[in-house]
Amino acid sequence: MNAERIVRLGVLGCGTVGSSFCELITEQADEIARRTGMRIEIAAVSVRDTAKPRRGVDAGLLTTDSASIVADPTIDVIIETMGGVDHTKELVLTAFASGKPVVTANKELLALHGPELFEAAASAGVDLALEASVAAGLPFIRALRESLTGEDVSRAMGIVNGTTNYILSQMTENGASYDDALAEAQRLGFAEADPTADVGGFDAGSKAAIIATLAFRRAVRAGDVFIEGIESITAEDISNAKRLGYVIKLLAVVERDDAGSIAARVHPTMVPTEHPLASVRDSFNAVYVEGTGIDQIMFYGRGAGGHPTAAMMVGDAIDVAANVGLGCHRGVGPLPDATIIPIDDITSAFYISVDALDQPGVLADIAGAFGSRGVSIRSMEQEGITDDAARLVFITHEAVESDLRATLIELADLASVKNIGQVLRVVCD
Amino acid sequence: MNAERIVRLGVLGCGTVGSSFCELITEQADEIARRTGMRIEIAAVSVRDTAKPRRGVDAGLLTTDSASIVADPTIDVIIETMGGVDHTKELVLTAFASGKPVVTANKELLALHGPELFEAAASAGVDLALEASVAAGLPFIRALRESLTGEDVSRAMGIVNGTTNYILSQMTENGASYDDALAEAQRLGFAEADPTADVGGFDAGSKAAIIATLAFRRAVRAGDVFIEGIESITAEDISNAKRLGYVIKLLAVVERDDAGSIAARVHPTMVPTEHPLASVRDSFNAVYVEGTGIDQIMFYGRGAGGHPTAAMMVGDAIDVAANVGLGCHRGVGPLPDATIIPIDDITSAFYISVDALDQPGVLADIAGAFGSRGVSIRSMEQEGITDDAARLVFITHEAVESDLRATLIELADLASVKNIGQVLRVVCD
Repeated sequence: MNAERIVRLGVLGCGTVGSSFCELITEQADEIARRTGMRIEIAAVSVRDTAKPRRGVDAGLLTTDSASIVADPTIDVIIETMGGVDHTKELVLTAFASGKPVVTANKELLALHGPELFEAAASAGVDLALEASVAAGLPFIRALRESLTGEDVSRAMGIVNGTTNYILSQMTENGASYDDALAEAQRLGFAEADPTADVGGFDAGSKAAIIATLAFRRAVRAGDVFIEGIESITAEDISNAKRLGYVIKLLAVVERDDAGSIAARVHPTMVPTEHPLASVRDSFNAVYVEGTGIDQIMFYGRGAGGHPTAAMMVGDAIDVAANVGLGCHRGVGPLPDATIIPIDDITSAFYISVDALDQPGVLADIAGAFGSRGVSIRSMEQEGITDDAARLVFITHEAVESDLRATLIELADLASVKNIGQVLRVVCD
Repeated sequence: MNAERIVRLGVLGCGTVGSSFCELITEQADEIARRTGMRIEIAAVSVRDTAKPRRGVDAGLLTTDSASIVADPTIDVIIETMGGVDHTKELVLTAFASGKPVVTANKELLALHGPELFEAAASAGVDLALEASVAAGLPFIRALRESLTGEDVSRAMGIVNGTTNYILSQMTENGASYDDALAEAQRLGFAEADPTADVGGFDAGSKAAIIATLAFRRAVRAGDVFIEGIESITAEDISNAKRLGYVIKLLAVVERDDAGSIAARVHPTMVPTEHPLASVRDSFNAVYVEGTGIDQIMFYGRGAGGHPTAAMMVGDAIDVAANVGLGCHRGVGPLPDATIIPIDDITSAFYISVDALDQPGVLADIAGAFGSRGVSIRSMEQEGITDDAARLVFITHEAVESDLRATLIELADLASVKNIGQVLRVVCD
């Protein structure tokens, strides 16, 4: 029997994820040692309040001094679960500078400073592992970084925010209103008291930046992502979508055009019910990747939660610890800045709901407005009549966003159009 | 700009996968170089007939001598796409002995000799990469080996044979008979002229052995897997399943009990329609993994085909080539032999169709037969009456296989039971 190599971890932060991580490492230590020959130990854990007991963590390991953990030469690997951006970035850079690899689930940090951090890790010859930063319980980052490293990815679409997927699933399956579904999500702890980061699409936006960076090997940052939230989605939109054979999902979509320019966006989207993403319900996450070689791949799992997130960080920690032993590391290669396609130039199919006078000639006027901007109608249905107006629902073929916007302005100017209702992007195969 | 490191690949075999691999490597060479700093080249390709032109492969690289490729000291990495077991195993072992890592998609080889090959690779200090060997287009092997290395996987269930999934999808969606669906699959090239390896479950059985080995880090071989094919599935079974809220899928199921013993089996299975595996249609594959940390994860994608298989092998080749440069390799750790749970001792819920006399007291007799063996009935429906017999469909709670078998014998002995029809295992959450 070979002697086990001891690997000492310094854990920054001990909230839900940090304490789950420590528990998992302790529970699995023997099995990990059997599989890998490494005895993984928690050497120190930084917290705000050392007096508060932490399940699964020896009180003697607690400290309030994160910087001392990062500087400790007896610690091999840093596990960052404290969150935050500026201070955390300094700690991570210091860890790299002292030769320590870092495992993190910090999506804000990566969406804002990922390219810089990858470069610093590469210069220091250490790993930056981030499996848990996007769709935490799905091991797809490693797939993007390694299995698909030779793949020409054309598009990735993700359900990467569990809160909004829970809300939209409740609206779809139980006919709940947006407000009721949000309240239920808050009651169950899936949504924050201030739900803006989730329902406004900002959380998904950070994740879109990370996905685009790794899928296309170009620096894409949070500010490059076009964002629309789900606050305007109504029960009627959901039921219209269902009747037309779609479900509404908040998608993070990243795509690359033939010239190599990149579009990254987050918005509520009509997804055909037979599409694999349509069956991703409740607070589950999924990431669907398309490429020339692979055709289509989807990763599905728990997007958040202490245990799934911690499980992925354990995988990263073992991986990174193995690399330390082997004296090697994995970079993602150079990350030149991406050329970002402005939202106006992006092509998509659209769903548009229009209230128009219920009289002859109106449809010709409306069709004329679409046609004048080169937007081609794929299907039209009359969904109902209220007072003297008929509600017409259109789905277009793929059109350029700016042409669609111009069409909407032209439609609004028509005397026969009383109101333009919901406008949603539609996933085409 | 750093000088590019040249990496020379020796490719064994140039069928659909081998030629797609060579094409992809050639097409992507510049992008791979940009991302990784490595210039990947095809150095030699072994074929049976060097006179036959191969798309995307320079004729000057062709040779009939696989052994010369494996021995060539100027070649860094072996890509094995030739298939076969005994001769191929010798070539792979020779490659290891000469310090070359091997990338393979050869599931038969791995299902029969995987543990021995992993050990030989580890002794030689080189990689054995096998992402494309199971559900070729899904990068889940890497996830099992690396991201989930610290995870306590309890069960994995896979749709890992595209042919049978295509046949069962046709039967489910178009009401096709088994024979018609098989003929259509053969016409489209999804099924072989002799379809036994697919429809008999043998192909899935090899994959189950590989999944179990990597999920549980124990040596599980093809012969350890219990196998039932889909040949007995009728259109009526499919429609009964649908009415009860299930679809029938050929699943490879591997699971571990609390004592660490392992069950590996392949059989047609009733899957609840709301289960993520139920929505995997046509020739797509999926692998669904459950564990204490991750909860549930699913990987979905193309299970076969030259391009998806080759794309995964390109990812493996880059990974392995990077390791060569770094002077490191990744093993899966020691693989002690698994303790295999015999099929008789495995627990499952069951679907049983029984034709019984349509007269009072019969149900009590039947229920008594179940009860006497400790098999508890979850639901019963009468599906129809033919002549003087009623067709009764039962779904049981979880029961031990041997108790279920004893129940069937007891049922068959009842005077009121005219025939026992289909018996299928049912997935419970």
